Amino acid sequence: MTKPELPVHVIDEIVKRALDEDLAAGDITTEACVDAATTATARAVARSALVACGGPVLARVYWAIDKEIRVRIDAEEGARVQAATTLWTISGRARSILMGERVALNLVQRMSGTATLARDFVDAVPPGTPTRITDTRKTTPGLRALERYAVRVGGARNHRDNLGSAVLIKDNHIAACGGIREAITRARARAPHTSKIECEVDSLEQLDEALAAGADIVLLDNMDTVTVAEAVRRAKGKALTEASGGVTLARVAELARAGVDVISVGALTHSAPAADIGLDFE
Amino acid sequence: MTKPELPVHVIDEIVKRALDEDLAAGDITTEACVDAATTATARAVARSALVACGGPVLARVYWAIDKEIRVRIDAEEGARVQAATTLWTISGRARSILMGERVALNLVQRMSGTATLARDFVDAVPPGTPTRITDTRKTTPGLRALERYAVRVGGARNHRDNLGSAVLIKDNHIAACGGIREAITRARARAPHTSKIECEVDSLEQLDEALAAGADIVLLDNMDTVTVAEAVRRAKGKALTEASGGVTLARVAELARAGVDVISVGALTHSAPAADIGLDFE
Amino acid sequence: MTKPELPVHVIDEIVKRALDEDLAAGDITTEACVDAATTATARAVARSALVACGGPVLARVYWAIDKEIRVRIDAEEGARVQAATTLWTISGRARSILMGERVALNLVQRMSGTATLARDFVDAVPPGTPTRITDTRKTTPGLRALERYAVRVGGARNHRDNLGSAVLIKDNHIAACGGIREAITRARARAPHTSKIECEVDSLEQLDEALAAGADIVLLDNMDTVTVAEAVRRAKGKALTEASGGVTLARVAELARAGVDVISVGALTHSAPAADIGLDFE
Amino acid sequence: MTKPELPVHVIDEIVKRALDEDLAAGDITTEACVDAATTATARAVARSALVACGGPVLARVYWAIDKEIRVRIDAEEGARVQAATTLWTISGRARSILMGERVALNLVQRMSGTATLARDFVDAVPPGTPTRITDTRKTTPGLRALERYAVRVGGARNHRDNLGSAVLIKDNHIAACGGIREAITRARARAPHTSKIECEVDSLEQLDEALAAGADIVLLDNMDTVTVAEAVRRAKGKALTEASGGVTLARVAELARAGVDVISVGALTHSAPAADIGLDFE
Amino acid sequence: MTKPELPVHVIDEIVKRALDEDLAAGDITTEACVDAATTATARAVARSALVACGGPVLARVYWAIDKEIRVRIDAEEGARVQAATTLWTISGRARSILMGERVALNLVQRMSGTATLARDFVDAVPPGTPTRITDTRKTTPGLRALERYAVRVGGARNHRDNLGSAVLIKDNHIAACGGIREAITRARARAPHTSKIECEVDSLEQLDEALAAGADIVLLDNMDTVTVAEAVRRAKGKALTEASGGVTLARVAELARAGVDVISVGALTHSAPAADIGLDFE
Amino acid sequence: MTKPELPVHVIDEIVKRALDEDLAAGDITTEACVDAATTATARAVARSALVACGGPVLARVYWAIDKEIRVRIDAEEGARVQAATTLWTISGRARSILMGERVALNLVQRMSGTATLARDFVDAVPPGTPTRITDTRKTTPGLRALERYAVRVGGARNHRDNLGSAVLIKDNHIAACGGIREAITRARARAPHTSKIECEVDSLEQLDEALAAGADIVLLDNMDTVTVAEAVRRAKGKALTEASGGVTLARVAELARAGVDVISVGALTHSAPAADIGLDFE
Repeated sequence: MTKPELPVHVIDEIVKRALDEDLAAGDITTEACVDAATTATARAVARSALVACGGPVLARVYWAIDKEIRVRIDAEEGARVQAATTLWTISGRARSILMGERVALNLVQRMSGTATLARDFVDAVPPGTPTRITDTRKTTPGLRALERYAVRVGGARNHRDNLGSAVLIKDNHIAACGGIREAITRARARAPHTSKIECEVDSLEQLDEALAAGADIVLLDNMDTVTVAEAVRRAKGKALTEASGGVTLARVAELARAGVDVISVGALTHSAPAADIGLDFE
Repeated sequence: MTKPELPVHVIDEIVKRALDEDLAAGDITTEACVDAATTATARAVARSALVACGGPVLARVYWAIDKEIRVRIDAEEGARVQAATTLWTISGRARSILMGERVALNLVQRMSGTATLARDFVDAVPPGTPTRITDTRKTTPGLRALERYAVRVGGARNHRDNLGSAVLIKDNHIAACGGIREAITRARARAPHTSKIECEVDSLEQLDEALAAGADIVLLDNMDTVTVAEAVRRAKGKALTEASGGVTLARVAELARAGVDVISVGALTHSAPAADIGLDFE
Repeated sequence: MTKPELPVHVIDEIVKRALDEDLAAGDITTEACVDAATTATARAVARSALVACGGPVLARVYWAIDKEIRVRIDAEEGARVQAATTLWTISGRARSILMGERVALNLVQRMSGTATLARDFVDAVPPGTPTRITDTRKTTPGLRALERYAVRVGGARNHRDNLGSAVLIKDNHIAACGGIREAITRARARAPHTSKIECEVDSLEQLDEALAAGADIVLLDNMDTVTVAEAVRRAKGKALTEASGGVTLARVAELARAGVDVISVGALTHSAPAADIGLDFE
Repeated sequence: MTKPELPVHVIDEIVKRALDEDLAAGDITTEACVDAATTATARAVARSALVACGGPVLARVYWAIDKEIRVRIDAEEGARVQAATTLWTISGRARSILMGERVALNLVQRMSGTATLARDFVDAVPPGTPTRITDTRKTTPGLRALERYAVRVGGARNHRDNLGSAVLIKDNHIAACGGIREAITRARARAPHTSKIECEVDSLEQLDEALAAGADIVLLDNMDTVTVAEAVRRAKGKALTEASGGVTLARVAELARAGVDVISVGALTHSAPAADIGLDFE
Repeated sequence: MTKPELPVHVIDEIVKRALDEDLAAGDITTEACVDAATTATARAVARSALVACGGPVLARVYWAIDKEIRVRIDAEEGARVQAATTLWTISGRARSILMGERVALNLVQRMSGTATLARDFVDAVPPGTPTRITDTRKTTPGLRALERYAVRVGGARNHRDNLGSAVLIKDNHIAACGGIREAITRARARAPHTSKIECEVDSLEQLDEALAAGADIVLLDNMDTVTVAEAVRRAKGKALTEASGGVTLARVAELARAGVDVISVGALTHSAPAADIGLDFE
Repeated sequence: MTKPELPVHVIDEIVKRALDEDLAAGDITTEACVDAATTATARAVARSALVACGGPVLARVYWAIDKEIRVRIDAEEGARVQAATTLWTISGRARSILMGERVALNLVQRMSGTATLARDFVDAVPPGTPTRITDTRKTTPGLRALERYAVRVGGARNHRDNLGSAVLIKDNHIAACGGIREAITRARARAPHTSKIECEVDSLEQLDEALAAGADIVLLDNMDTVTVAEAVRRAKGKALTEASGGVTLARVAELARAGVDVISVGALTHSAPAADIGLDFE
């Protein structure tokens, strides 16, 4: 599988902000209790089963704090590991390890949490069905790049990155335009030719209208599976179909079997519980 | 109740970053489909029961986008509302409302999610027991100030803000120092006199050592309720007691009845599901 | 025509940087020579024919310097004006007007220069041919959002905004993949489903390969017009065609008549001469 | 010749912004098509004759993206090279090279464009005449430091950097003061003693007034060559003379022969066409 | 007297940083003790005699915290006031006033401290002697613009702003060049023509060399008054003279009488004690 | 003694700002006079007796300018040295050393100035008395972290870092609450349990009220020594005592003998004169 890529300058900006929150005034406990010269080795350990994600980010946290710290990647990005598996090993000045512990864990726990949930959704797609699981723009403000990366590490795919990277016509746009046909026509005339035109539809009538207007993708919003199946049938050969709206793990299989091309899942980024990862000093 | 306060310049910094993520390249759908002069009114509506939180943040999102937008606060910060309640009403240019929709919702959904979970924990404390629910430093990187505010809006309290604002001696500090007594002594000698000295203990033996060394607060880490009760008995009149470590809603009542002063709950900020809030155009 | 939109927070970030460059150490000439209480009115005047662009940016420059300054928009964004036309009128403290003059002019001269050149290209497309003129990513570092806006103000369209907003497979990607088919297949499998797949081709052989692999857009790189016409013929009904590579104004008409869908022009943003605009005090 | 110097922290700030524009959401094409482990070597090649400028900036772009990338400087800053000359060679991970390609080229094309135009102006000064070519403050917002460096690399000189670094009295300052004498007197009394006093004059009458008031430099604004020659005669021994206002390459020689000390050329930075540089993979 | 000018965007950047330091985690005392709706009026009062400076900065601190706060300027910038004088009056929400108190006072106490010391030096120049008092680049990192403004408010003048705004050749430059003549010649050839050439000299021999090479200003470093007087005599009509190096208030008069043009005083910005200003609630 | 720790990312942010002030437009003197290839060694030398502080900061200044520069720490942080002692030795490109000289010295002179004054206060505490000297929040805006570090390097201790890290109830909070008892009660109920409650008192009556309400620390504001001694007697076993308000070096001994636990000294950070440190080239 292609290895997801996360630009270093994007990581560093997020790491800097996180350190500013936690370490701007120093670490009064560590400075008082730990001698400056003490060295240590600590292992970041999965406390429960999870998909490992965030090693390069943890490494940049420590690079920002102390250039002498060494970080070893024990679990590849995207590896499914069992509880008690060592993910990453950190060695160097004990003060530095302690000063960065919480910031590093806060980041990798969220990233691994999202990667794990993404993997669960991907694994719920029945073998042989080509349905793609994607995220949405319901990401944590300030962490979109990390979370989209975690989604890919988990094996799912990304939806559009931002309001400027693709067209997605929703009910309010349609209302403002006076109709689906008009909205799609305007978007095709004005948006970059590199973007597909996606249109949200709430009913089969709207679906037909969107297909007639030449939508490239139809977003089937909160439809039951029978309706989705009918929508897929009507859209076949004309547009990609995307199911969205509170899709749970339990529903993935039936939606996939209904033939939908894409299932987009906001929960991957807005409600994934943090993975349980701890730092053990040797 | 005292109204929590969230500094405006802190909000604005977070809002700016969030807008950079979503709107730096403009909104190609809205620009194509919605005329610049069209105006609208939209209501942010709770889709399920929740504790309202984030109105001032939503207002700053729109202030950043368009100084002419008006935001009305329909639900006070901290109000428990039922599904279908209007929380905030936004009126002005339709383009501006649409351009800010996702960023605004991403922020208030997280804040209301945390406030709601905080309220649930606070409400689980039996009447008459003085136990305090607090957050931890397991916050979302970049959003700590918002999340700590949401915790207070939910009726819970904050733990220390960062590594510089209070002393919390953990096992690794103790190991590096050579013992609890030494760690507490060093911290009292060197940390600001305005900070209490909190010490994590894993056993009653450690507890006794921490109390003897004069700890102001003892963090009872992952102890069962019987042990907590004994720890509370030993600490009475000497130190505050704080229970921590994967505390679920179900366990709050028994811990409170065991007499613990504080229960700190990482899940308030690391795993609260986003509250379901939508934007309805009139 | 739909009015292009430029987010205010994007403008303000650019304006702040520009002011930091020019005004961080104050304006020693103005402070010495102009009394603080003196007021004035100044008109930004086109010194030659141009397409007006940048009024909202000029207004934000002055808003950043002095909240009391009033800016009146005399020429609509996108208006073609003759030499000596007043574009915008600024009134308030004379010191403030002078302190912001160079920064404001540097911005609007570039924006109007790009808008003017974009309009020239658009006007060179023969009536009745649907060819679209677009920019490229060859923008001035730090000013991409302003320049893309200026391109739209001039009546042209935008290409993809950045490396994350659409797929464009170039020769080096093809080489790294081992072929056009493999590159397109991989991109379709992994990139967001909202992005079209564009593939650069240098020859009709490559074109056929790209079409066979299902490219949504083919980028005809540096082809002569006869070849472009043949490429258009082969791509008809299968993919959009985009001509690129040093296209001059003189060649637009023949390329459009050859039926190409899109002509992308790097010069719109990398080599547009600044429009000549001066500030006249009344 | 003294080698121009460009502070690293200034480069890095500009590079970071440029990467934020292009790479904040990753590179979906490269991630999909190029394996993470693939390495490559690419050469930045002049497609036409130019003055090389920007090697240290290109190197910092790649340093920001990937610390393992190696950049070799093949052409010295300021070297005049023919088409097909390799300027810089980049080797390392193919993904990194591709991800930084556009940002790096956008920067060096502008810098080399300005350096080339500056060299053309410098070369137009007849041998034996001491006239100096300088830039103005008509720089690209956000890139002033890079452009002024490119001007020096091209062999020309810089004018004042910003509004706080030297006094330049223009017509509006004169009007606000009530006259040239008053303006110069005020400036001498109040501005830093390290700054010369330059005064713009539109006529020989104004010139005489400025010289009488003790101006250190007179800016001859939009004067014909005969008038410039007379101005030079009158100013000899009293003040430096600077010709400005739409000076073209063709006029440089006659102005220099007229004896003017300085010719300042806004076009060096506001209208230099980008130099044509491409990236060829081996 | 001309009123010094301090650009708003420069103030705001400094204010934001200062608020980040003190208020990023909220104000736990004020939130607990003061109701959100309480209003108040507070007066910033001089506790001892001083030169008022910083009113516009204090106003921006409160504008950043709370747009509803009103700030009244009771003492003009540069006014010499006695102890117990009200300088500025702040009214609005009591919480906001308290949250900004320390940041505002920290800024205005430093600014007024510098303005007061500057005024003392200016007043020490005997009437009728034209000697100018200036600051140096020995400013507080991050606050240079505020401090240079305070120097002007105090009636003194600014030296060069930064390393790019004027030439000042020091002993190490001379050593690197191989002599004063060479250094001055190089600087004249390469530095902007708008900058004077200042050269530091330690002896009368060096002075003669600098004058012969055409220095515009000579910096008389740590010379006794007799030597300064001789230097002034030799430089008359050729260069400005500047005395520098640990000049105390007591020595100003004799140096001025020795005829030196400029006395530059590092202590204005590196060692001015903070002025004593308190905030009294009504 | 425990070695104070200053996070690297905090230093770098301050260094970047300082370089922006001084070096954003380059160093026109050094570029003109010093060849790019010249190397040198320079020693930062104490010109008078001082406590060394700032070596790690000086090192980061040079790391920001030129990765090839080597900095050797000759005097440990906190070492008391005599005049003429070499503190730090810098070697590498002469241009780089010169370009960073002023920024580096401005930082270390302030840090060493504060460390020296802190040491003087600490040394004024009579042997055998346990009184602690601390700073206050009266720090230089933007430099709080550096100054608090310098205070610790000087052997003194820090007070609370910011408004969110501890409770300090002042007269205005008391007035807004309706009394000391109410203020302390509210603070205990709402502030983090990790913070002690400090209350400012102006009289023995207020002291008794604060003690009765359970204050952890009482701030004795501007009291004479006899009153301080009585306050200490009353507070014994109930609360820590802190003397504050214009405490001079001369008064430290008598206050310490009066038994006060803490003396907080604003002058450590708001009025410490810069230490005299120069840079000598070998």
